[in-house]
Parts: sequence; structure tokens; C-alpha cells
Amino acid sequence: MERSRLPVSFELEADRMRNLLLQPEEVAKETRVVMEERRLRTEDNPQALTYEQFNATAFLNSPYRIPVIGWMNDLETLRLEDLQVWYQKWYAPNNATLVVVGDVQPEAVHALAQQYFGPLEPSPDLTPPKPRPEIPQRGTRRIEVKAPAELPFLMMGYKVPVLLTAGEDWEAYALEVLAGVLDGGSSARLSRELVRGTQVAAEAGAGYSLYGRQQSLLTLSGTPSPGQDIAALEQALREQIHLLREQPVSAGELERVKAQVVAANVYEQDSAFYQAMKIGTLETVGLDWRVLDDYVPRIRAVTAEQVQAVARNYLHDDGLTVGVLDPQPMDPNAPPAMPMGGGHGH
Amino acid sequence: MERSRLPVSFELEADRMRNLLLQPEEVAKETRVVMEERRLRTEDNPQALTYEQFNATAFLNSPYRIPVIGWMNDLETLRLEDLQVWYQKWYAPNNATLVVVGDVQPEAVHALAQQYFGPLEPSPDLTPPKPRPEIPQRGTRRIEVKAPAELPFLMMGYKVPVLLTAGEDWEAYALEVLAGVLDGGSSARLSRELVRGTQVAAEAGAGYSLYGRQQSLLTLSGTPSPGQDIAALEQALREQIHLLREQPVSAGELERVKAQVVAANVYEQDSAFYQAMKIGTLETVGLDWRVLDDYVPRIRAVTAEQVQAVARNYLHDDGLTVGVLDPQPMDPNAPPAMPMGGGHGH
Repeated sequence: MERSRLPVSFELEADRMRNLLLQPEEVAKETRVVMEERRLRTEDNPQALTYEQFNATAFLNSPYRIPVIGWMNDLETLRLEDLQVWYQKWYAPNNATLVVVGDVQPEAVHALAQQYFGPLEPSPDLTPPKPRPEIPQRGTRRIEVKAPAELPFLMMGYKVPVLLTAGEDWEAYALEVLAGVLDGGSSARLSRELVRGTQVAAEAGAGYSLYGRQQSLLTLSGTPSPGQDIAALEQALREQIHLLREQPVSAGELERVKAQVVAANVYEQDSAFYQAMKIGTLETVGLDWRVLDDYVPRIRAVTAEQVQAVARNYLHDDGLTVGVLDPQPMDPNAPPAMPMGGGHGH
Repeated sequence: MERSRLPVSFELEADRMRNLLLQPEEVAKETRVVMEERRLRTEDNPQALTYEQFNATAFLNSPYRIPVIGWMNDLETLRLEDLQVWYQKWYAPNNATLVVVGDVQPEAVHALAQQYFGPLEPSPDLTPPKPRPEIPQRGTRRIEVKAPAELPFLMMGYKVPVLLTAGEDWEAYALEVLAGVLDGGSSARLSRELVRGTQVAAEAGAGYSLYGRQQSLLTLSGTPSPGQDIAALEQALREQIHLLREQPVSAGELERVKAQVVAANVYEQDSAFYQAMKIGTLETVGLDWRVLDDYVPRIRAVTAEQVQAVARNYLHDDGLTVGVLDPQPMDPNAPPAMPMGGGHGH
């Protein structure tokens, strides 16, 4: 957006924060659109369907269990009044974070914020959401999802802390590095060992995000190669976890992975949109956005012993949830499934 | 209660329906009592803990997943305002069912209800709770719960319809009879085959309740005999299910079981309290209380083919959830656990 358009974007955002008109026909139409979106992205996407049920099994009581778009039933039973109440309560200046990234003067932005958002009425009695930490997991959980699909799919997740919940900050950064040892570029272990090496996997990946509100998952996922089965893939992934617990990462590999993790973080900053989103996310979950500046030095400070320590402390069977997509014959008349978008983070 | 006390009980119930005073210290104290109750009955009771997590795995989105007493965290974060809002909204004459069972005159009871509950202010805009049916289960789910315990424990549940959700009414009655074939008196199959026969189980039981608001579970549970393990017990329980799917119950066994199920139902009527509770439950879930009168003739009408049909239609691996308690060493200083009370029904 060109800088001179800043005032009009403030005007528009401030207007829709408090003055949205929820009209019955429009809401009904838009709800149908969202339901169709959900059908394409989840109900008709076997990997996404597996992930959703896997996730609701890994988290039995925390809000992380609920899909962001809601269950289909939530959309089917959505009432105009529900939206109105929700909008009036939460879409308020005292519950918003405004982030502006780009070639602007902070004072000018602040003045615009005062001008447009200052007069908006705050929501009264806005208490922060209650903390709802997940109950302790006490053993492996395993679900099977049978759905029309061409290929099987395996999803594994270990309960791990995030920056906000870690006993020690370094644990979250060590988990970032650990995820980088497994996945991140073609020389990462899952690609090297499972995809190109033993070829047990057609694809395999790992995911972790340290910026969450509460305890999260380090995930592993993959598709077996033709002729290989899910059990072999799970065994191979578990062996990788075992290795991380048993042997410290070598100095050379650690340096390469840290450079890769740092580079990925630096490349992200190229996008002004992504910068803004990250700052907004951090402030929203209750972290100071300035922790962004800690990222590179904290990653660089992670040691091989720390990577091994988080593997030993958190990557054990008692905190493991496994989801298996068991492919069923495809309906020949069904439309093609969309690929699953985005990561598995929260 | 003696009949002459009826007016005073109306007076008391009407008073506490609308005029309850929620005082901060009392609420705080009572909440601590409930938390202590929960700790004794669930956190420190390994079978109950297993059941709770099993249940939240079997039901991923329907409200049946939530323990009636709430998760410990719900109690820890309960605010006085939450109680006030809840009480004012739901404890209202337009959201209540009044049941009086005993030696009374209907006209007199009706007059008392008018006199005491008639003047109470109804809650405005009381919309019924949204239906939140469980998403379709697509494969076996399995969880392990490691907790200090003396013995292992196995909990299995198959998704089955209840009277309100069954495609055909007879399915629910056939499931009642099926549960009676497995459990109900010493000649039922689980006692006869698993406890006294092969002695794979120290105890084993089955449960089902046809009067629920939505899709429920037919449960199997048990403890292996000393020297037997959970896997052997699960195998034996699965064989019993297999048998129900493969072979119709003999005429003799069917008659004996039906007589037993009917007798249990008739004995229940001996308790005026239980009669009242059942009528209240039925009206609350949306069933006419008069379906109680259908019970005996409908059970008597169940055929062996119907029992086999519900076994085939519902007792399959895709609708199965398994919870396993894996006993850990007991803390020698811990107080003894309370036995798990009541059934597993909703």
C-alpha cells in the first residue's frame, strides 16, 4: 500500500471494528461460503481430516483442540445473534493490537491511531480469556482415520513447551533447532535419511512453533514410499527421535542447522506483511514483540547438549499422539481434493 | 418425605430456583470442596481418570466429552460472575421440569406448582441448546493412561445410537438386550465365559443406556486376572463381540436375558426417587416420559435377529475407542483411592 493511503486504511479499519452491519441474507450467504470452504479443505481433504482429529485427540481439554474455522456443526448452527454478541464483545479497541510496518513515521501513525480508533467505544468488562492448559498426557494416544484417499499419511505429535510455558527459555529455542535438524532444507535428517536414504518415506517433515499461548506439539508427518507401509514409516521416524535422545548433534551439523534456521528467519523479514503478522501474533498471545530481536542470538546460543536435553525431556512415548490415515477407495465422481495449506502450528 | 411436607418443599425449591444468594466466601469454600471431591474421585482414582480421558477421546466434539463436574482447571478458574450468569439464565421456571412421585393428588400438585412457581420470572430469550452431534468416527482410537494403581484396567466403547437418534426404535431396545446378554447377573456371558470360564478377567462388565440426548457408547470394561494381561482381556472381549455379530442368541438365552432386563427395570420402580429421576431425565433430554411405559413390551418384542443386527451395524472397529490403564508404582504416602461410583452412561 502506498504511504498516502494510510489515513484511508485507518478510516476503513476503525469503521469495521465497531460499525459492521450483520445483515441476515449476507451472513447466511457467507456462512454457506465458509462451509463450502471447510468441505473442500477438510471434509474432502483426507490429510487435513486426519490432522483435525489427531489434534483433537492430542488436546483433550485445551482450546487448541478446536479447529479455527470450527467444526462443520458450528457453522451449520451458527445464528446471527451469536455473531452479533461475539463481534460487539471482542471487536473493540481495548482488545486489539494495531501493527503498521513500512516506510512510516511512528508519530504520524500514533496520531492516526488516536484520531480514528481513539473515539471508538471500548467493550466494558473485558476480562482476558481464562487460561485453559491441557491436562497432563499420561501415555501414547493413537487414532485411525479411514477416508477416501490415494495415499496413507502419518501424523505424530509430542507435547512440548513453547516460549511462554517453558521452564527455561532455552528449551523453546532448542526445540526450534531440533525441528531444524529433522526438517529444513534437503540436508536435514528426514530428507537425507528417510526420503533419499532408506526411501521409506515419499515425504516427511517436522514442525514446531515457539510462539504460542500454551503447551504445543512438535509434529512429525509423512507419507510412505510406494511399497512401504505406515508402520515402517513410524518406526523410521521413531528411530530419528531415538537418535536425538541418545546422541548429541555433531558440532558441524549443529552449526549448519543453526545457520539454516537463522537464514529462514531472516528471509521471513523480507515480507512486510509477515513481519506485521508476527508482531501481531506475539502481542496477541501475550509475548512482547521485541522477543523477535532475541531470536537470532538465542538460536545461535543453542548447544548440542540442549537439543539432546529437550529430546530427552519431551520426545517420549507418554506425550505422543499418532494419527494414521488409512486410505479407502476414492469415489470416482468426487471432485479432486485440494492440497492441505499451511503448517500445523497454532 | 411425608405428604403434609409437600407445600414447604415447593416453597423451598421455588425460593432457591430464583433467589439463591451467591456469596463470595461461601462460593470459594464450596468450590474447594468440589475440587477436593474431584481429586478424590478422579485425579486419585486411576480407573476414573482412565474413563475420563477415554471418554474425551471417544467424543471429539460433542458435549459428552466434558466431565459433568468439569475439568480441574474449570474449577480452578471459576468466577463468581460465571455462576451468577449461569444461574440467572438457566435456573428458571421456563427451563425446569418438576416431577412429583408418590401418594399425591395430581390436581393438588398442580395447584402448588402454580402457587409457588407461577409467580417466578421466566428467563427471557431462552433458546434451547444447539444440537452438537459427534463427528463420524472413522477408525479405532486407543489411549494409554499411566497412573499409580494396583491393577490394570481396560475400557472399550462402541458408538451406538440411543432411542432419540436410532433410525428405528427397536435398535435401542435391541442394544439394551445385547448389553444384558453380556452383563446382568451371573449367567450373563462376560461373567460366565471370561470371569468363571477362561478366567481371563477378574471382573468384566458392559453398559448401555438408551435414554440419552445423542449418540452414545456401548461400553465394555474389565480387569485382567492375576497373570493375565490387558491384551488377552481385550482379545476375549472382542471375541464376545465377534460372537454376537456372527451367531444369533439362542431362544432360551434370549428369553432368560429379556426376563432379567425386564426384572431389573421393574425393581427400579420400587424406588420413588429413581422413578422421579427417570421421568425428569426423559423430559430433560427431549423424550416423552411416557416412553417408560413402552420399555417392558418393547424389550419383550426384541428378536435374536435384531440383537445380531445391532451388533453387526454398530459393534465394529471403526466406531471403537479403547482406553488402557497402565499401572505405575503407588506412592506409599498417598491416601487410598475411592472406588469408582456409578455407571458410565450419560
